[in-house]
Amino acid sequence: MGLLGDLQRQLHAAGGGHQHRGHPGAPAQPAAGAAGGAVRALIITQGPARGHRALRELAAASDLVLAADGGARTARLAGVVPHEIVGDLDSLDATTMRWAARRRVRRRVFPRAKEATDAELALWQARRRGARQVWLFGAVAGRLDQTLANVFLLFAARRLRVAARLTDGRATAYLVDGDAEVRGRRGDTVSLLPLSPVVRGITTAGLRYPLRRGVLRRGSTRGLSNEMTASAARVRLTAGDLLLVHTPR
Amino acid sequence: MGLLGDLQRQLHAAGGGHQHRGHPGAPAQPAAGAAGGAVRALIITQGPARGHRALRELAAASDLVLAADGGARTARLAGVVPHEIVGDLDSLDATTMRWAARRRVRRRVFPRAKEATDAELALWQARRRGARQVWLFGAVAGRLDQTLANVFLLFAARRLRVAARLTDGRATAYLVDGDAEVRGRRGDTVSLLPLSPVVRGITTAGLRYPLRRGVLRRGSTRGLSNEMTASAARVRLTAGDLLLVHTPR
Repeated sequence: MGLLGDLQRQLHAAGGGHQHRGHPGAPAQPAAGAAGGAVRALIITQGPARGHRALRELAAASDLVLAADGGARTARLAGVVPHEIVGDLDSLDATTMRWAARRRVRRRVFPRAKEATDAELALWQARRRGARQVWLFGAVAGRLDQTLANVFLLFAARRLRVAARLTDGRATAYLVDGDAEVRGRRGDTVSLLPLSPVVRGITTAGLRYPLRRGVLRRGSTRGLSNEMTASAARVRLTAGDLLLVHTPR
Repeated sequence: MGLLGDLQRQLHAAGGGHQHRGHPGAPAQPAAGAAGGAVRALIITQGPARGHRALRELAAASDLVLAADGGARTARLAGVVPHEIVGDLDSLDATTMRWAARRRVRRRVFPRAKEATDAELALWQARRRGARQVWLFGAVAGRLDQTLANVFLLFAARRLRVAARLTDGRATAYLVDGDAEVRGRRGDTVSLLPLSPVVRGITTAGLRYPLRRGVLRRGSTRGLSNEMTASAARVRLTAGDLLLVHTPR
């Protein structure tokens, strides 16, 4: 169990009606949208170096696996063959290039990289291919601006009506849309971070420091480092943008 | 020059009318508010391990140096003696405890740590001691929730009418309040991240990909990884919350 189990549980919790297809070893065409079910996509961005087992689990549970440019290297090192590499392809090393060519991985090249990061381009591409749920596997411990851009891609996904979660293979972050259930273990850390000036009507269950119709203001750290008291926790809110970060202990 | 010079330039740019007092080796009472000038405070949070020289430079240019709990260890390792240690003191190792006791560093102990992180408590304390400008030296590459909480403390500082900047000793992040000048070097990375749903009227100078009364929406990565074309860049906006992240090359 542990991390992988946690991610899997979260993935299942996020979706419902999951049909496990597994991830093909050498993809020809992604099955995206084929069987009529909700398409689950995985977007692999550059880094992190760790979390390879978690990445393989996520890939196995995804219908569509996209590597955002340099993310192809992360995929290769984890032994995950993406359906497609998306981006301006300026960050691909020669070894990964050859590896992808041998496996006939498609490339979706976007010339004007400065209009969006490769991760955002990959998000659009996932949406175009019918994704309704997206996992972003990426660096949340590298350059600050890139970390933040990955977090805020969750808002871009929301605009595209895609349920999105960001993970580095350990912590998972997502926007609470009215109601969220966290599946994990007693002792896990759950942090609530207001991303709008104010978040209202926050009620929690299964956390050591509970809130009852509470208010969190942006900049307040009151919602940080709460602790799960059971294997499930619940967070509801009535208004505002709240980021939930779940870090297994 | 390099990083330290950059930080110094930014510190000076942020303030104006700087009176360099230097940082005492063994502080008795912080000089906070004494000379009638604007008090500059430095808050040292837990981690990062690197950036010690930058930390010493910042300390030397500050009137008041606060360590947020475990940040005292960072201070010790960098050879910086804080005026005060603030927090619930649950993260202090024995060596740092002894080191601080020998130097008679004051402690400001807050019992209810769950209402705020030690970094936020230190921010309040800095404000109480008259700080009008604050540098937050801290981890922006550790646990995602803590990194984000440090970034969003910039909003808490804004509410307290304190001009605040966050740095890990390399990158610097701050909110653009109408107008900001970045001092650095050609080739440095400047990223603009909208933190409100929309940021309007963005005009830049000195960046490779310019904006003229541009609009950035939260979640768009269009403002990411721009590049300085001179030793100074300028960013103006008319409405919205914009985070600027400057990363020297």
